[in-house]
Amino acid sequence: MADLDRMSVTAEAIAQMAKTPDPRMREVMAAAIRHLHDFAREVDLKPDEWLAGIAFLTAVGQACTPYRQEFILLSDVLGLSRLVNVMHDAEGREAAGTETSLLGPFFREKAPEFAPGESIAVHSTDGEQMVLFGTVTDADGRPVPDAEIDIWQTDAHGQYDLQANDPEVMDLRGRYRTDAAGRYHMRTVKPIGYSIPMDGPVGKFVRQQDRHGMRPAHIHVLVQAPGYRELVTALYLGDDPNIDSDTVFGVSDSLVVTPSMGLPGAPRSDLPAVRYDFRLSRLAAGETGGRVGADPSQMMPAAQ
Amino acid sequence: MADLDRMSVTAEAIAQMAKTPDPRMREVMAAAIRHLHDFAREVDLKPDEWLAGIAFLTAVGQACTPYRQEFILLSDVLGLSRLVNVMHDAEGREAAGTETSLLGPFFREKAPEFAPGESIAVHSTDGEQMVLFGTVTDADGRPVPDAEIDIWQTDAHGQYDLQANDPEVMDLRGRYRTDAAGRYHMRTVKPIGYSIPMDGPVGKFVRQQDRHGMRPAHIHVLVQAPGYRELVTALYLGDDPNIDSDTVFGVSDSLVVTPSMGLPGAPRSDLPAVRYDFRLSRLAAGETGGRVGADPSQMMPAAQ
Repeated sequence: MADLDRMSVTAEAIAQMAKTPDPRMREVMAAAIRHLHDFAREVDLKPDEWLAGIAFLTAVGQACTPYRQEFILLSDVLGLSRLVNVMHDAEGREAAGTETSLLGPFFREKAPEFAPGESIAVHSTDGEQMVLFGTVTDADGRPVPDAEIDIWQTDAHGQYDLQANDPEVMDLRGRYRTDAAGRYHMRTVKPIGYSIPMDGPVGKFVRQQDRHGMRPAHIHVLVQAPGYRELVTALYLGDDPNIDSDTVFGVSDSLVVTPSMGLPGAPRSDLPAVRYDFRLSRLAAGETGGRVGADPSQMMPAAQ
Repeated sequence: MADLDRMSVTAEAIAQMAKTPDPRMREVMAAAIRHLHDFAREVDLKPDEWLAGIAFLTAVGQACTPYRQEFILLSDVLGLSRLVNVMHDAEGREAAGTETSLLGPFFREKAPEFAPGESIAVHSTDGEQMVLFGTVTDADGRPVPDAEIDIWQTDAHGQYDLQANDPEVMDLRGRYRTDAAGRYHMRTVKPIGYSIPMDGPVGKFVRQQDRHGMRPAHIHVLVQAPGYRELVTALYLGDDPNIDSDTVFGVSDSLVVTPSMGLPGAPRSDLPAVRYDFRLSRLAAGETGGRVGADPSQMMPAAQ
């Protein structure tokens, strides 16, 4: 090994990875090394700062549990999750397809199934009731029958089921199916905006940056149907004070909604409603439709 | 928040951090965001790859214990530790000062104190004995009396005390002091090259890159004396087969040594010896002398 200087150490590190059998891993890691080293050189990273970074990442990793994915939260507040989302979206979504948003750290597989019109607010029933209805179609407007629509959200106090009470009890999340005409009808209580979890290292980091750490009120949506790209999105409530400063950069204008009375076609006249028509993009050949997010319980390493 | 695209999400993330009160943190994080996002854009990072990265970092964090710092190990195998080291060195070390090397994950505070000539091989005594002797001077060659020299290394089977047997028992590490003429005399057994810990996520990562994961045999050295920059370095044994392909990029030519018999001035004639004269750089005004590395037990987050 020739004596290494501040530039040659980068070439040496990449050279040592040159035999990586997986060409994509080789490409991604070479780029990661270059950008990581460029960053360190640009800011002239000091040993105590490096150590603070190590300690921070360690704390983030140690804060992860089967019910909490602190690294996804970090990726979220750094804008990385949204960036990966936007790139994935631009590549596979048809122009008329619904825009996507972040899955976030609170998604869980196998949420309870509900019949049309039933409410996902089973245990936490506080708050103003509202209806969601509309259709699921392809990008050309043709109905998609029997599509599965998974929604999940906070209660009226800003907490997900995983944060409130017994994490084994699922609440304010559920799965619905569209009818033969691609129509759906869901009921819930109005979610409220909430702070990301501020009791961990990422919360401390956000406070150090003088950020409010708030997400505007929203309802997460995941729509799946065979032959279509999985749609991971969310509907944001337009009257939230933080609608323009989401701390995880999830909001798009086309996903902002406002519940109102007397909507044409609303299945109930006694509750404020939102009509939203989801448009699915066809799955491209060979596309697996990876998801920007994950069930935290699936992200923990196996016990050593 | 305007609709974000693959470029504007970066500006938006930096803008949301613009109120960070600490100007250095603001600068470092803005650069971190730019390089992180540039990396993701350059490789067009896919959701499943992003998720694999999250899972990997989570596993690295979860592998950290009071006796093991897996994130420092990751930094080491990515060449980042060496880069930070080289930059720190170039900034503060006097031209004639001894080159530095990595502290690594096995340093421990408060190693046992030894008198000149005593051996640090107290429990693990297998292997060929050797002597280390020489002087500690300033960069102009003036002796530094009462300097503390901390050394630590593997046993003759390639394990540190933290890896072998009871981690509470310190072995093959110790502190010596220079005499009034700046001279020191230490005794140990010859270390052997070893694999970095391969049973964790970083080991798996290194295997995926078809790297041997070996470090050439070396003795870690930390020299401290009031008024001087802390010297973190290591002496590498020149006959090690991996002397040119250290998996953590720690070797410098000026730190390669070969034990031999009959050295002038050697304190013992019956053992092979290495003479090494350490030259300390003066501490610059206001410099705190941060260390590229840490005692793993100091790096764990406080219990929540």
